[in-house]
Amino acid sequence: MALMTADEYKSSLKDGRTVYYRGEKVDDVTNHPIISIAIEHASIDYNMAESEEYRDIAVVKDENGNEYSRYYQIPRNKNDLLLRSSLIEKSTALGGTLVVLIKEIGSDALFALHLIASHMDKENGTEYLSRIKNFYQECRDKDLAISVAQTDVKGDRDKSPGEQEDPDLYVRVVDQDSSGITIRGAKIHTSVSTNAHEIIVLPTRNMKKGEEKYAVACAVPANSPGLTMIASGYGSREGNEFENPISSQHKMMETLTIFEDVKVPWERVFLNGEVEMAGPLAKLFVEFHRFTAVSYKLPLVDLFVGASHLIAEYNGTINKSHIRDKIAKLITYAQICRGMTREAAQECKIIDEIAIPNAELINIAKLHFATGYHEAISWVQDIAGGLLVTGPSEEDVQNDKLNLLINKYLKGSPKVKTLNRLSLMNLIAEITSTDFAGYQAVLAIHAEGSIEAEKMTIIKEHAIEKSIEYAKWLAKIK
Amino acid sequence: MALMTADEYKSSLKDGRTVYYRGEKVDDVTNHPIISIAIEHASIDYNMAESEEYRDIAVVKDENGNEYSRYYQIPRNKNDLLLRSSLIEKSTALGGTLVVLIKEIGSDALFALHLIASHMDKENGTEYLSRIKNFYQECRDKDLAISVAQTDVKGDRDKSPGEQEDPDLYVRVVDQDSSGITIRGAKIHTSVSTNAHEIIVLPTRNMKKGEEKYAVACAVPANSPGLTMIASGYGSREGNEFENPISSQHKMMETLTIFEDVKVPWERVFLNGEVEMAGPLAKLFVEFHRFTAVSYKLPLVDLFVGASHLIAEYNGTINKSHIRDKIAKLITYAQICRGMTREAAQECKIIDEIAIPNAELINIAKLHFATGYHEAISWVQDIAGGLLVTGPSEEDVQNDKLNLLINKYLKGSPKVKTLNRLSLMNLIAEITSTDFAGYQAVLAIHAEGSIEAEKMTIIKEHAIEKSIEYAKWLAKIK
Amino acid sequence: MALMTADEYKSSLKDGRTVYYRGEKVDDVTNHPIISIAIEHASIDYNMAESEEYRDIAVVKDENGNEYSRYYQIPRNKNDLLLRSSLIEKSTALGGTLVVLIKEIGSDALFALHLIASHMDKENGTEYLSRIKNFYQECRDKDLAISVAQTDVKGDRDKSPGEQEDPDLYVRVVDQDSSGITIRGAKIHTSVSTNAHEIIVLPTRNMKKGEEKYAVACAVPANSPGLTMIASGYGSREGNEFENPISSQHKMMETLTIFEDVKVPWERVFLNGEVEMAGPLAKLFVEFHRFTAVSYKLPLVDLFVGASHLIAEYNGTINKSHIRDKIAKLITYAQICRGMTREAAQECKIIDEIAIPNAELINIAKLHFATGYHEAISWVQDIAGGLLVTGPSEEDVQNDKLNLLINKYLKGSPKVKTLNRLSLMNLIAEITSTDFAGYQAVLAIHAEGSIEAEKMTIIKEHAIEKSIEYAKWLAKIK
Amino acid sequence: MALMTADEYKSSLKDGRTVYYRGEKVDDVTNHPIISIAIEHASIDYNMAESEEYRDIAVVKDENGNEYSRYYQIPRNKNDLLLRSSLIEKSTALGGTLVVLIKEIGSDALFALHLIASHMDKENGTEYLSRIKNFYQECRDKDLAISVAQTDVKGDRDKSPGEQEDPDLYVRVVDQDSSGITIRGAKIHTSVSTNAHEIIVLPTRNMKKGEEKYAVACAVPANSPGLTMIASGYGSREGNEFENPISSQHKMMETLTIFEDVKVPWERVFLNGEVEMAGPLAKLFVEFHRFTAVSYKLPLVDLFVGASHLIAEYNGTINKSHIRDKIAKLITYAQICRGMTREAAQECKIIDEIAIPNAELINIAKLHFATGYHEAISWVQDIAGGLLVTGPSEEDVQNDKLNLLINKYLKGSPKVKTLNRLSLMNLIAEITSTDFAGYQAVLAIHAEGSIEAEKMTIIKEHAIEKSIEYAKWLAKIK
Repeated sequence: MALMTADEYKSSLKDGRTVYYRGEKVDDVTNHPIISIAIEHASIDYNMAESEEYRDIAVVKDENGNEYSRYYQIPRNKNDLLLRSSLIEKSTALGGTLVVLIKEIGSDALFALHLIASHMDKENGTEYLSRIKNFYQECRDKDLAISVAQTDVKGDRDKSPGEQEDPDLYVRVVDQDSSGITIRGAKIHTSVSTNAHEIIVLPTRNMKKGEEKYAVACAVPANSPGLTMIASGYGSREGNEFENPISSQHKMMETLTIFEDVKVPWERVFLNGEVEMAGPLAKLFVEFHRFTAVSYKLPLVDLFVGASHLIAEYNGTINKSHIRDKIAKLITYAQICRGMTREAAQECKIIDEIAIPNAELINIAKLHFATGYHEAISWVQDIAGGLLVTGPSEEDVQNDKLNLLINKYLKGSPKVKTLNRLSLMNLIAEITSTDFAGYQAVLAIHAEGSIEAEKMTIIKEHAIEKSIEYAKWLAKIK
Repeated sequence: MALMTADEYKSSLKDGRTVYYRGEKVDDVTNHPIISIAIEHASIDYNMAESEEYRDIAVVKDENGNEYSRYYQIPRNKNDLLLRSSLIEKSTALGGTLVVLIKEIGSDALFALHLIASHMDKENGTEYLSRIKNFYQECRDKDLAISVAQTDVKGDRDKSPGEQEDPDLYVRVVDQDSSGITIRGAKIHTSVSTNAHEIIVLPTRNMKKGEEKYAVACAVPANSPGLTMIASGYGSREGNEFENPISSQHKMMETLTIFEDVKVPWERVFLNGEVEMAGPLAKLFVEFHRFTAVSYKLPLVDLFVGASHLIAEYNGTINKSHIRDKIAKLITYAQICRGMTREAAQECKIIDEIAIPNAELINIAKLHFATGYHEAISWVQDIAGGLLVTGPSEEDVQNDKLNLLINKYLKGSPKVKTLNRLSLMNLIAEITSTDFAGYQAVLAIHAEGSIEAEKMTIIKEHAIEKSIEYAKWLAKIK
Repeated sequence: MALMTADEYKSSLKDGRTVYYRGEKVDDVTNHPIISIAIEHASIDYNMAESEEYRDIAVVKDENGNEYSRYYQIPRNKNDLLLRSSLIEKSTALGGTLVVLIKEIGSDALFALHLIASHMDKENGTEYLSRIKNFYQECRDKDLAISVAQTDVKGDRDKSPGEQEDPDLYVRVVDQDSSGITIRGAKIHTSVSTNAHEIIVLPTRNMKKGEEKYAVACAVPANSPGLTMIASGYGSREGNEFENPISSQHKMMETLTIFEDVKVPWERVFLNGEVEMAGPLAKLFVEFHRFTAVSYKLPLVDLFVGASHLIAEYNGTINKSHIRDKIAKLITYAQICRGMTREAAQECKIIDEIAIPNAELINIAKLHFATGYHEAISWVQDIAGGLLVTGPSEEDVQNDKLNLLINKYLKGSPKVKTLNRLSLMNLIAEITSTDFAGYQAVLAIHAEGSIEAEKMTIIKEHAIEKSIEYAKWLAKIK
Repeated sequence: MALMTADEYKSSLKDGRTVYYRGEKVDDVTNHPIISIAIEHASIDYNMAESEEYRDIAVVKDENGNEYSRYYQIPRNKNDLLLRSSLIEKSTALGGTLVVLIKEIGSDALFALHLIASHMDKENGTEYLSRIKNFYQECRDKDLAISVAQTDVKGDRDKSPGEQEDPDLYVRVVDQDSSGITIRGAKIHTSVSTNAHEIIVLPTRNMKKGEEKYAVACAVPANSPGLTMIASGYGSREGNEFENPISSQHKMMETLTIFEDVKVPWERVFLNGEVEMAGPLAKLFVEFHRFTAVSYKLPLVDLFVGASHLIAEYNGTINKSHIRDKIAKLITYAQICRGMTREAAQECKIIDEIAIPNAELINIAKLHFATGYHEAISWVQDIAGGLLVTGPSEEDVQNDKLNLLINKYLKGSPKVKTLNRLSLMNLIAEITSTDFAGYQAVLAIHAEGSIEAEKMTIIKEHAIEKSIEYAKWLAKIK
């Protein structure tokens, strides 16, 4: 029981897992040209725990003085939530605005599983909670990286799991015996799975009577027999640092995660047929995870502000009225994201000694982020200028003759080095106008639950009665 | 030294003040058909202090155990600010979404004056702080109602005070002697002045060298010789409770406040020629007052939510997808206003033992409110339906024959009394579609500083360097 | 057969109709203090036909050289539609941005009835078309004012006509015999009915098998026995010209129009049980009427532009960057409304020799107007300033002493008379911040079909297949 | 004199021009892996003229019956403009939403030069018009591809050309003699220059007295000595058709175009020192070019509609209320772009027998497109789903084992082949979430003049007096 080092983490990933990338089976993920970038990115997590600078925020001690990662600390109060949010914000900042996620999402799932297990045990006399506690202890003690596979591939969205032509379009239990269950199906958008140790499987939606086989939650090692991961090739090319300052260094793999009759022993089964709890588990995980989500958006929205202001200085346009207008709006956007995230911690709800971020406020924070994202991007692009997509390449800059021409002609404000202006332009392109930006944009809308789901949660969680009573009082309605 | 009662308050207003309403001089404001409604509204303040229910929030005790109004409590920490905000929210709720304001705005001015006086005394060796303290003590001990006259009439907006054709278009000192100063000019949009005891005069903007005469702050009794108030007739008609559930009960007077050579003794002069402090004083007052402003907006935005939800129930449309979409957005709008107000308290700055709401966050809260207001109104109107402006009058309802027809034909959901539906419709009309709504809408944009001023403050107060450093680090700029 | 004069129009309204206003039965609408304003407003229509200046646009001749109102001209091509639009725009401009409507809406209904009758006669061998033609000829020859009663009171919106607890919540046929039908029920939001000659009753929605009694269209004189109109008291007070430059001169009455067993002879019955045509008739009328609607919005959106620009000149703020930004947006808003209205005429569809405005484009024009309206209002209010709701009354201006003070202190740009600035401020208040503005705002959202209905029509009418084929071609989908 | 074929076009580009790509000098642009894609794309223009299907729209005849490209037809009336718009729309549709541009932009410049030359000759007795006519005749007769170099690199945006530290940051005349002028400087964002025959140089802004050297317009062959083009490497990688259905086939090169003392003979000099005409020429070109711009946006906005609708069908979500809401908004967005483009032609202004698109309306069309673009993208991404950025690669699909898994698990609606769904997903990714989408987004904001420039033009061109007069009439201001 000790914190893992980055090197140990990397070694541990050579475990025979079945990962495909661009049609080829990857023998060793740690030396794959693309996936290794994702692993390096994930290592930020382990490096922070080792570093002087981040140790305090990244590591906590248990009652016996044993250190473990703060991600695994079960939040007991608003302060724990605020510190968790700060840690996520900080590691994402080090990750170039890309979340690290290898413990964030797993711990979100574990917190939700604790609460649901406890509830089920009380209601049904089951013994799920001890299983969760054991699994949690293992993850924490071994300092593991965890992925969560939640989103089923779903087939025809208009139909429920049981109504699909192919019964496997939602992950289901196809068999069970004394040793455990066997699951089949596929999950999509599974982040960091290529380089996680464990994959927690969660249901994606409400289930109803007759859909017992689809009400399943469990954990499986990433190298389980029958488990195949097809990593997406989207946006994954080897760029150079000048043109791709972020994506050349930071990457997160997404997989189509296929379970072809994967066996799961009973001690790792956390839901099995309790249809009435599939929805609550899905939802509770998402609430914890939305708190993670808004925390990890903060470096990006801050960067919108800082990069826009700086490029306007470099371009010599910082005093223009319409530029300042857009910068004020970018700050407002960023600070409402931050403020509402903090409020969601401040107004948390404590159940079974676990502090749950305020579901209404966290959804408001997330919705504000998601619905304002594209307009924010347009402001940043407007401030930066057309050079975002017409600038020179790294090879141009390294050609001596061209370098002279570029230096002369792409100079902005005389106080600023041309190369700095171009580097900043490329950074802004990455966060607004490239595959990496497209990835972030789609995440903004779809990750951690859809915009429409956020709206429905907001209505459900809002204390609407108080406002209705006020309306009635004013209208003299009895 | 004791809290004033509502009756004492009313009596005290028969003091010979010069108020005009619709071309006629008002002998006694307390029995004027329109202004008396405003006085009744203002009395909410005094009534709360007397009531069992609100005493705890409305009243505090000094070190000697003497009670005084919480409005006059100088905020020392975030908790004081949160309680002040709650008090303002509560009194406004009792006021039918219309702020009471007779102590809110005055205390905002007093807090700012404390800080500026302290600063000036340190810098210049003046003795302003003792004057402020004495005046503050008087207001607090006598439990006075205070108006603030800040917005000069300004003439040609393109010109500064000294450049106007008529030198009186900003209030200025025209004379001074051993007893004090004499001021001339006019302020516009002076709220609650018809029924305040004291009027605090503040500068409205930055002043520069040569504009010393315009750099003036002071306090004058509402019945000072030379002081004339022309109350606006806007929206002030005697409505009935059915059709005008709010404005028939609640009103706030706005005046053009004219100083025709009003004398002010030295002990009530708080700025006199210190041009460099005119802007900081104006701005600091506005920051305190914007915190008041966002606090008093909360009942209104809550009412948007509650009234919309309820009318959708009454109409039988609560399950429609687009209705729920709009309700979710209304909740989001309201809760960001509330959350950012709380954050502005949480992140306050403490100077000279006075807690100042976080200027950036309070401006963000205000800007969010102001820029979202009209769209929010459109959602409420969309949910309510056209009956908002085509419904029957009180007299129709009281006519027996028509009453039967109205009851039969304007019924919505069968579970709801027709009259309740119509009462709620009229309430919604008042907050969206009448003179009262227009007044609130113009307030939303213009009161407590313009939208453009809010944006400029946000840029100025934001810790932009941190974001710029992050951009530089990512772009590898040194 | 000749054009009616305004005097003849007024006389003709003394016909014993049953109108209630604020609980009292109105003996003679022409001398009622409020309704007479609406009648004066309606007279614009008849006066234009008499005037030198507007005769050409307002009057056309039939094949025999007989003059009749252009409103009654059945549009045969795009040019007829453009001229009709111009006439509506012009009369509304004379009406102070308030549509005159006494022939616009009726002719919209008659055009739709022609097409539906023709269709039904072909399908079912009925003889509706000759009835329509006769009624149309009568309206045109007698130059009548017509109201359309379409919106049923609807009861519980969640239920269809036949499912309501009270069967009368949609107008229905309660009896029929050799002479005609008898109808019962009530329509709401019936505009200009207090001063129209005829009321055309149309269904408000799709009907289905079993709802035959609700599938009814017909025409009844305004003074029919059993017909009661309760005029809404909303916003109807006698203002003065200074403070209410529009609403003191221009008004449109809205009624709850109740049919207590009104008999309608067969020659005035245009739909009776043909459930499958109720929806198409409702929809076709609405399409014609939306074209009227966007035409009559143009003076208002132009006024937003002109009044904003002018008040900015008066205030001395016309050169400020954010003011110019808002003016540019107001122009854009207005010109898209106008351009898309013209396009809807240009791209009309001709059926049975009747030119129908392009349904997709007219809904787009209307949706653009409706969804941008509230933001446009916010820009106008922002440009004008807080004086919108705190200015002096007419009586203040007429008091000599106050007049001097007002003239001195409420002066803006020195080139502009104070009174002109205040008059303009009051005009802007009327279009943004008063009951009149609220009425226009609710109209913007709810009149001529809801925003949601507009969206559904746009999808239905759009030639989506062409775009889908293009997507398939690019994606190489066969 | 005849139309060029695509083959002739390609051959003609082997002319010794100096083009750099990623640091290397390109010997032959026609066989460069990236630039050759752009040349293939440009060939659409020549192929259309050859094809049966597009000949009618692509080719016109002169008075002698000689055929030439319709792009070169000087528009004489609204119909010519509408046909020009259709041609641009059609060629862009064939270009996969990417404009072809090799004659569009050049002819825009030539039309503007005709008008400005004519004006200057009349005013100053110069003989520019004959030069323009000769050059125009040459371009038309030889069927040439033309690029326009307008945007100077600008240095510090806060300073005018003459104030820059380096005098070369705007293109300027450094010498002139009996044979012609010599120019130095650089232009940025020069589109299609790598594969154009001629480059027309235009000023980018107003010039004032003392900036005569910067007031220069002329034409130079693409292979002129001293002319160096550095092609941007942005987004230019060799993709496969499955993952990059558009950008693997269609490309447009942008260059930094450097003039190191390029000589231009007098007959190709179109402005030389007439500072007062630099602004009007810049602006007039931009107005013609904005008409081109909005015409070429139409296939893209149509594709938003078609692709969104189709993917919703494929996903099984087409009947969801929020999906339909977004599709209705996408249609509205597209159709306002189209309608206002048509209106700009309908309302053209004819000067010197040249039809100029209505400047106000074309700017409104462009502004509507630009300010709505990012939100439109967000709707498309929202409708499509997260698979946009997590889907499989071409190599995955071609691997037999994975192909089976992908086919099974990424199936949407059972009526649709999985591969079609994925192909469509990739197409949508290209127009919303990749480098190609980023390029289009930055174009949307910055190409053809900035958003702020569009707003200022709208105000300047609007007939504001008419609206102001209406406001005055209503407010009774004389």
